[in-house]
Formats: sequence, structure tokens, C-alpha cells
Amino acid sequence: MVAVATGGDADAEECALAEMVGRELARRGAVLLCGGLGGGMAAACRGAKEAGGTTVGILPGAQRLDANPYVDIALATGLGEARNALVVRAADALIAVAGEFGTLSEIALALRTGTPVVGLATWQLSKKGEPVDAFPQVETAIDAVEIALAIRKR
Amino acid sequence: MVAVATGGDADAEECALAEMVGRELARRGAVLLCGGLGGGMAAACRGAKEAGGTTVGILPGAQRLDANPYVDIALATGLGEARNALVVRAADALIAVAGEFGTLSEIALALRTGTPVVGLATWQLSKKGEPVDAFPQVETAIDAVEIALAIRKR
Amino acid sequence: MVAVATGGDADAEECALAEMVGRELARRGAVLLCGGLGGGMAAACRGAKEAGGTTVGILPGAQRLDANPYVDIALATGLGEARNALVVRAADALIAVAGEFGTLSEIALALRTGTPVVGLATWQLSKKGEPVDAFPQVETAIDAVEIALAIRKR
Amino acid sequence: MVAVATGGDADAEECALAEMVGRELARRGAVLLCGGLGGGMAAACRGAKEAGGTTVGILPGAQRLDANPYVDIALATGLGEARNALVVRAADALIAVAGEFGTLSEIALALRTGTPVVGLATWQLSKKGEPVDAFPQVETAIDAVEIALAIRKR
Repeated sequence: MVAVATGGDADAEECALAEMVGRELARRGAVLLCGGLGGGMAAACRGAKEAGGTTVGILPGAQRLDANPYVDIALATGLGEARNALVVRAADALIAVAGEFGTLSEIALALRTGTPVVGLATWQLSKKGEPVDAFPQVETAIDAVEIALAIRKR
Repeated sequence: MVAVATGGDADAEECALAEMVGRELARRGAVLLCGGLGGGMAAACRGAKEAGGTTVGILPGAQRLDANPYVDIALATGLGEARNALVVRAADALIAVAGEFGTLSEIALALRTGTPVVGLATWQLSKKGEPVDAFPQVETAIDAVEIALAIRKR
Repeated sequence: MVAVATGGDADAEECALAEMVGRELARRGAVLLCGGLGGGMAAACRGAKEAGGTTVGILPGAQRLDANPYVDIALATGLGEARNALVVRAADALIAVAGEFGTLSEIALALRTGTPVVGLATWQLSKKGEPVDAFPQVETAIDAVEIALAIRKR
Repeated sequence: MVAVATGGDADAEECALAEMVGRELARRGAVLLCGGLGGGMAAACRGAKEAGGTTVGILPGAQRLDANPYVDIALATGLGEARNALVVRAADALIAVAGEFGTLSEIALALRTGTPVVGLATWQLSKKGEPVDAFPQVETAIDAVEIALAIRKR
């Protein structure tokens, strides 16, 4: 089970990346977990479904109807952004594709709780002026999935 | 998506009931949602899998390995018993089968948040000496599923 | 730290009970914890403040402004009813005063997780036709506080 | 109510900063909210208590005893790192002092949910090679508090 963290307002290029990640995860037999909403999340789920995969969406609101149409198992949590901690906890690895502050929170929670992270065109970190190399950053969707499956928990 | 609330320490008779509920839910095309652990939860999931259904377990701990072997999609939450609110929130209806205090909390949270409840050999409520008829109680697994699907949300 | 579970729509008699519980908790030096909203919760907090106590409200919504005016420390959680698990977890004992399904969920979560419960004009439980004597039920606010402090955790 | 996000393993210099932030918050009449554990969190609480302030700790574990000795109101959540979302949600502003991945998650959740952030010797963000100026970074504890109170919610 691999989580894809990405933005609800991803642009076309970022959605294309997310879709390729979803497709490759499905092709490799992984269940795709995400926040279940639109934008990059919908693109990732669409990719996974095109390749015959299974998708799980952990929604912030209390209504399952908010899920994008490519989510197989939609869980309405009513927890708001606290659901990001659930996405991270439930996953064996996290692939961050571009993304905004929600994606950054998932990266940080994953690093904090020991879920391995792979980055693709996403946030980079530094502290007190020095870069912090906290997780591998790759260039392609295929590399992202390859590494996520290699370093996953369990 | 219908949740089954039942005890981790259900006895043989209660497990048989939970298994019949799971089987009937699957036969009717519903996804079974539960707390994902053993006892009655495992029996319900086993019943659903025997009938070709899909099962989702929302676990209290941080380890997916705690799930019973009949769970298809196991979500480790690390939230402890607060995960009961998630089971209830994500479901369209809740069937309570016997159960202990955890089951009672799921009944109460469902009644509080508008998820319809059906009871089967489970808790009965009264207040200030008067019975409170808060949800339908039925005698058989088939009736429980029948009514749950009839009164479900959405 | 003692939680008071009670209804947002408590009637005058129930509010009077909740207020007496709040006053007695403060008089005995306990911090009062509750869901922070109106009705019985406001009455309990008012009682505690009249006796010079400290009150903490754990709110379901994302806005601190929802707190009743007698809450000293108001925590907006944005978790919805899942915040009931937090009230129970944070308390050393729970006093249930009358109440509706939300109160029942707090009783059940407390019994499940080992927080001692005292009842005052509140829910009574039975299972399969037999009463279940899960927690002490008392007749007066003073008895409720006395017993809660005697059986509390830690 | 202002949250201080900082590391449990802060070094002496970082603890001194956190302590000054806590002291200045108390001097200015703000309630200090934090994760309630040791290291930088204990330093911030100690600073606030030295200046006569009030401190609230939202703990990840189920035991209130984990709180540092300078926490007035300790709330054991049992939610693990998901409690970071609660710290952020309950606060009117967040001051991040140095910190590790937990602090980064609080910065990100605050930016995501609209809680204003001020940084002091903490994480800096960039994306696709470009710096992202997501929140003000200051040089002193007094500036951090000054700005946090100026930009806070409500």
C-alpha cells in the first residue's frame, strides 16, 4: 500500500506525473492510497484504475461524495486536515508529487513517523541556510515507484 | 459500505451471527467495514470473503499486521479507540452484533452523527428507568442486513 | 482532571445538576474538562467558575468562538464527534449527567479505555434482556464528585 | 493562544530561544500551547511559567505523566503524531523554533489550514529549485512573539 501525496490544484504537467505514478503503482501490484479528492489525487487514481489497480481515498470531510470518481474505497473521516496523518500512517511508503502545503505536511509526518518518502518535483528542505537531504528525490514516475517499493516498510 | 460493530472477544454463537452478517452483506453487494481485529470482526470478514465480498478494516494500532486475515484493505490509524468514530463516519449504516463497550461506543457515535443503526443481540438502552428505543433490533442476520440496506444513508 | 459528559440540550433540571457537579469539582480542586459547548456543558462550566475552578473545553468544530463563556481553555479540534474520544482520554474520571447519544458515546469510550465513570440521571445499559451494571450510578452531584475523585485514574 | 513548535531534542541554544519565546508570550498575556513533551517544549513552558503565564500541552500518548513539569493543563490524546494537527488547529498563531520533522509538520499543517506561522531558526522551504517564502522568518524571540501576535487569527 503506497500513498501518493499531491495537490488538489495540480497543473497539467503535475497531473500527468501523478497519473504515471498511479499507473506504475497499479502495474506493480500496489494499492494506491491518497486523500481522495480532485486534481493530482484524481489523476493518480485514474492512472491506477487504467492499469487495473485498487485505489483508496481518505477524505477530510464527512461526505463520501467528495471522492473523485476513480476511488474504489472512499473513507469519509470528518477529521479535516488531521486525516493527513492517517494517509501517512496507513501507507508503507509515500510518493510526493509536486503538491502544496498539504503535501508538505504528509512528507513531514511520514519522515516523523518512519514511513519512507520519495519525492518527484516536490518540496525541498533546508534549515538555517543548509539543505537537508531528508528523502530521495527522483526525476521520473517509474523511478519514484521503483524506489518507493524498494524502501517501503514491512 | 456497511460497518459491522462487534466484539473482539465474541463467543462462538456471536461469531456465527457476525459471520452470517458478513456473508449476507457480501451477497447483497455491500462493502464490509469494521475495526479489523479478531473475534467477531474476523468472523464477519470471513463470512464476507466466503461470499466473494470486499472487506475494509480500520485498525486502532499503528501496525497493519494486527488485521485479521480476511481484511482486504487494512488501514492502520494509530488513533487507538478514537478510530471507532472513523468506522462510524465512513459507513452508510452500522450493524451492531452483540459486542462490548467498543461496540456500544460505535452505536452511540452512529446515533449521534446520523449513521443508521441496526442491532442484533446487542446493547439495549434506557434512561431514568425508561427504555429508549433508539434503533431497530432484529433477530436474524438476514433481517439485520435487509434493514441496514433499507435505512442506509445516501 | 475530571470530565463532565452531558447534553447540549439539557433541560433546566439537568442543567442544575450539571452546575452542581461543576461547582463541587471546583470546590474539591479538580480541573473540569468537557465538550465546551452550551446547555449542560455551559452549566457545568458556570458552576466551576462560580467556585473559582478551572475549565477546559474540547470543541468539535474548528472555531474557538463556539465555546461557552465559562470555558477558560478552549481547544478547537475540527475533529467533529471524534473529539469525544479526546475528552475521555484526557480525563482521570468521567461524570455523566443525563445526556443524549454524545454522552452515551463518552460513557462507552471511557468504559472501553479504562477511564472510571460515574452516572447521575443518565443512561442505563442492558444486553440480551439483562441489566449490565457497568458503572456506579448516584443520586446527587456531591456523591458523583465524591465517587469520581475516589475511583479516578492515577 | 499561541502554539510553539519545537524539537524534543533541541540543543542548548535552541532551548534558550524557545525559553525566551515562552517568556515573552507570557509577558504579553498569551496562553502557550505546545506538544507538552521535553526538550524545546519544556524550555518554552519553563519560560512561560517564569513569567507567570499559562501553558497547555497536547500530548501524543495516552498518559498525562509524559508532560513536562511546566505544563499547567496536560491533555493526553493517544493520537500519536496526529496530535500535531490539534496543536495547530487550536492555536491562533504558530511560532516554529528550530525543530525537526514534527515541527515541519506543524508548520505545513498551519499553512494548510490558515493558522499564521512565524519562524525562528527553523525550516526553510523551496520547490523545484526555487525558494518559497511561505511565512515570515525572524531573528529574535521578541520579534517572533511580536509578529505572531500581530498576524494571529481572530
